[in-house]
Amino acid sequence: MTLDYIFHPRSIAVVGASTSRWSAVTHLFLNTLPHFGYKGEIYPINPRMDEVSGLKAFPNVRDVPGVVDHVICMIPAEATRQLLEDCVAKGVKTVHLYTSGFAETGEVDRGRLQDELVSIARNGGIRIIGPNCMGIYCPGSGITYCADFPQERGNVGFISQSGSYSILVVRGAAARGVRFSKVVSYGNASDIDEIELLDYMLHDPETEVIAAYIEGTKDGPRLREVLTEAAAKKPVIIIKKGGTAAGSRGTISHTGALAGDDAVWEALLKQTGAIRVEDFEEMIDLLVTFRFFQLPHGRRVAVVGLGGGASVRASDECELGGLSLPPAPEELVAELKRFIPVAGSMLRNPIDMGTYRHDWTPVLQALDGWTELDMFLWQIAPEIEPFEEGIYRQFIKDKRSLILEIFQGLQKPTAVVVHAVEASIGLETLDIMRTGCAEHEMAFYPSIYRAACAISRYVDYHARRGHQ
Amino acid sequence: MTLDYIFHPRSIAVVGASTSRWSAVTHLFLNTLPHFGYKGEIYPINPRMDEVSGLKAFPNVRDVPGVVDHVICMIPAEATRQLLEDCVAKGVKTVHLYTSGFAETGEVDRGRLQDELVSIARNGGIRIIGPNCMGIYCPGSGITYCADFPQERGNVGFISQSGSYSILVVRGAAARGVRFSKVVSYGNASDIDEIELLDYMLHDPETEVIAAYIEGTKDGPRLREVLTEAAAKKPVIIIKKGGTAAGSRGTISHTGALAGDDAVWEALLKQTGAIRVEDFEEMIDLLVTFRFFQLPHGRRVAVVGLGGGASVRASDECELGGLSLPPAPEELVAELKRFIPVAGSMLRNPIDMGTYRHDWTPVLQALDGWTELDMFLWQIAPEIEPFEEGIYRQFIKDKRSLILEIFQGLQKPTAVVVHAVEASIGLETLDIMRTGCAEHEMAFYPSIYRAACAISRYVDYHARRGHQ
Repeated sequence: MTLDYIFHPRSIAVVGASTSRWSAVTHLFLNTLPHFGYKGEIYPINPRMDEVSGLKAFPNVRDVPGVVDHVICMIPAEATRQLLEDCVAKGVKTVHLYTSGFAETGEVDRGRLQDELVSIARNGGIRIIGPNCMGIYCPGSGITYCADFPQERGNVGFISQSGSYSILVVRGAAARGVRFSKVVSYGNASDIDEIELLDYMLHDPETEVIAAYIEGTKDGPRLREVLTEAAAKKPVIIIKKGGTAAGSRGTISHTGALAGDDAVWEALLKQTGAIRVEDFEEMIDLLVTFRFFQLPHGRRVAVVGLGGGASVRASDECELGGLSLPPAPEELVAELKRFIPVAGSMLRNPIDMGTYRHDWTPVLQALDGWTELDMFLWQIAPEIEPFEEGIYRQFIKDKRSLILEIFQGLQKPTAVVVHAVEASIGLETLDIMRTGCAEHEMAFYPSIYRAACAISRYVDYHARRGHQ
Repeated sequence: MTLDYIFHPRSIAVVGASTSRWSAVTHLFLNTLPHFGYKGEIYPINPRMDEVSGLKAFPNVRDVPGVVDHVICMIPAEATRQLLEDCVAKGVKTVHLYTSGFAETGEVDRGRLQDELVSIARNGGIRIIGPNCMGIYCPGSGITYCADFPQERGNVGFISQSGSYSILVVRGAAARGVRFSKVVSYGNASDIDEIELLDYMLHDPETEVIAAYIEGTKDGPRLREVLTEAAAKKPVIIIKKGGTAAGSRGTISHTGALAGDDAVWEALLKQTGAIRVEDFEEMIDLLVTFRFFQLPHGRRVAVVGLGGGASVRASDECELGGLSLPPAPEELVAELKRFIPVAGSMLRNPIDMGTYRHDWTPVLQALDGWTELDMFLWQIAPEIEPFEEGIYRQFIKDKRSLILEIFQGLQKPTAVVVHAVEASIGLETLDIMRTGCAEHEMAFYPSIYRAACAISRYVDYHARRGHQ
């Protein structure tokens, strides 16, 4: 728990803050932190300004009258050596170097400069986050780097070597109701690295699920150790990028990490018990599943929804994703026929209700009693609707809460899928249902295939641990 | 060319049209056709109404005073036998049975009813489209089943056993600038089937690229023949669904097709020279590529754009998709440094411009002279931008035409990728750029991986034919 203090600074100095409209550090931190709930003091540092965003500015961190625990820095790389020395003099605890232009450039002198900063920091008792990164998002202490991240706390701890991945995952998962304990975008990992952060997340009581985007490591054996320990205690979901030759060149050029052979990584991650995912979409799907999807007894799914081609597709996708679709028993089909006309529908699983005008309650209740079934996926593909006016969309708009409450009344775990990305017509429907699911704390996925893969891996995870 | 007349009826009767607000056939056909440019007579048929949508209605097709070439039918299955007999008496040429509730239900009596209709039609010189399908979209003669399909003609002929897939593909491809010659959603294939339609498309001079969604066939050897002939003459892109056990059950229940073993289909399609794609996304990507992407000399791509993590991801995705990213030569990197600051950027391919404020023209021109390079993918991932206000979006909004004109001035083939689906923040950007690319006749893709896969298969296609 040694790193815990970096998430709870008593005050923050923002170095490079300025009145220029192009000052990213001002927009991202200085102007955002007070509204995000950060309660400590915030000090703009700029030798050429007396005031920035209504706050008194200081020429140097050393001139700040009170304590400065945390420094966010976005001045050019050339000026950071002096800054670090000033920070040591001031007794700063953590420096977040948003600044880039260090080892990731592949230039020898830039790598050397980065090493010098680390050496100044180590001698002066300072920890460095970065350089070349977004830093810390910790809703519990009101720290963020994107104003639109959720202010509520959650149970997911996420570390990301890439700043953009950290934003993608937080935004994408947040849109589906997931909340975070602490997120660290750690860039070049010059000082605080993935090993120390994973070790922190493993011991952090607020963090119940650990997610990580990693491009490389400097200590494979130690990473294996900490991952093994973490994965034994909490689900650990990992994206490892930079495996191909070009990707590897990219990571060196991105965060200066040594990406290494992908087969080596694959083996390493497999040994640890971590869940390796392909990309951020799959990571978000798993975070949603761990958060909202009740553990099913098995892999037998019924797909219920609208659209014939979509239903055929759905059955293929479930099986490819690792779930199975048992055929509906004859008695059940007979019962469903009481509620659904046989024309324009499919009743054998997948179940295509044929038209949006039916009341789904009796259908779902009949299915809920099917003993050879473990879960439901309810799906709608608004882009297949032939009507310009968007009847599906209007229906979802009007009945969203009603539908979600029916689902929540079922015994079996249920997730919602809205498949809509190719044309604009379906996006509004997707957004309405995604928001509704987030509010109702239900699992939402943007395709049957993604739902099937995530749920299947979730079942795998628990099966390996002997649950269910 | 025997089937050509089904796309050019002199008049259309819409059976089941009514003043009810729930009458789909009225909304989809009767009210749409005149606005879509259909020039022939349109007759509503309804024994209980004198007028529908301002048109004089007739109780029976036999009562229509003029000729009736084409009948669109959406009355219950039980009434279709009589309708077919009336159509024979009237001398109708084609009946499109939108109506479902036939062989696809798996009910024996429903299958028998379908067979009876076919037998009445064959004896009476009528061709049947369907049942259980959307019918014909032919912009050249002003026929459609979705009011929002493009009215302009194009070069893609598409046949789809699934109505919803036909809508997905047309909408998705149209949003990216692709236009169609003729589209047929043919459902249960009771009479006109995939074999006859493929044979038609093969000989149709308006059709230069053939696309097909197939769930099954009744005559594998004949299908192989016609596909082989078609693929020798035009690119043929095929989705085959229903391969898994559940999917196969789904197709029987969807269109009554016998899906068969997927390995058999895989072999069959491979022998013919058709391009098999996984799903509609990949089909749309290939249609876009064949339409807009100039054939590159090889597979060497430079990825240029914004975002570090996105660039690392991009390089992995290109290689996984079958393209290669050569490292930028030292002289070129040196030249790029004249335009792009080394901090916050990546210059070795992938090339991350670091910030949206640069002028890209000199960078792209320098890259255009790189002799060991075959093409560009330009990418932006708006959801990674840390600013709430959406600077990327605003930039794309303001500069779209300028950017696309720069791309069009390059020697090497260039495509645009906007990756944005996980949160709502990027969708507007995606839509702006997608529309711009459609207008400028440029290839657009929603992810680097999808771009790489499509371009790679396109290069494969031409390589097999000995082009380039």
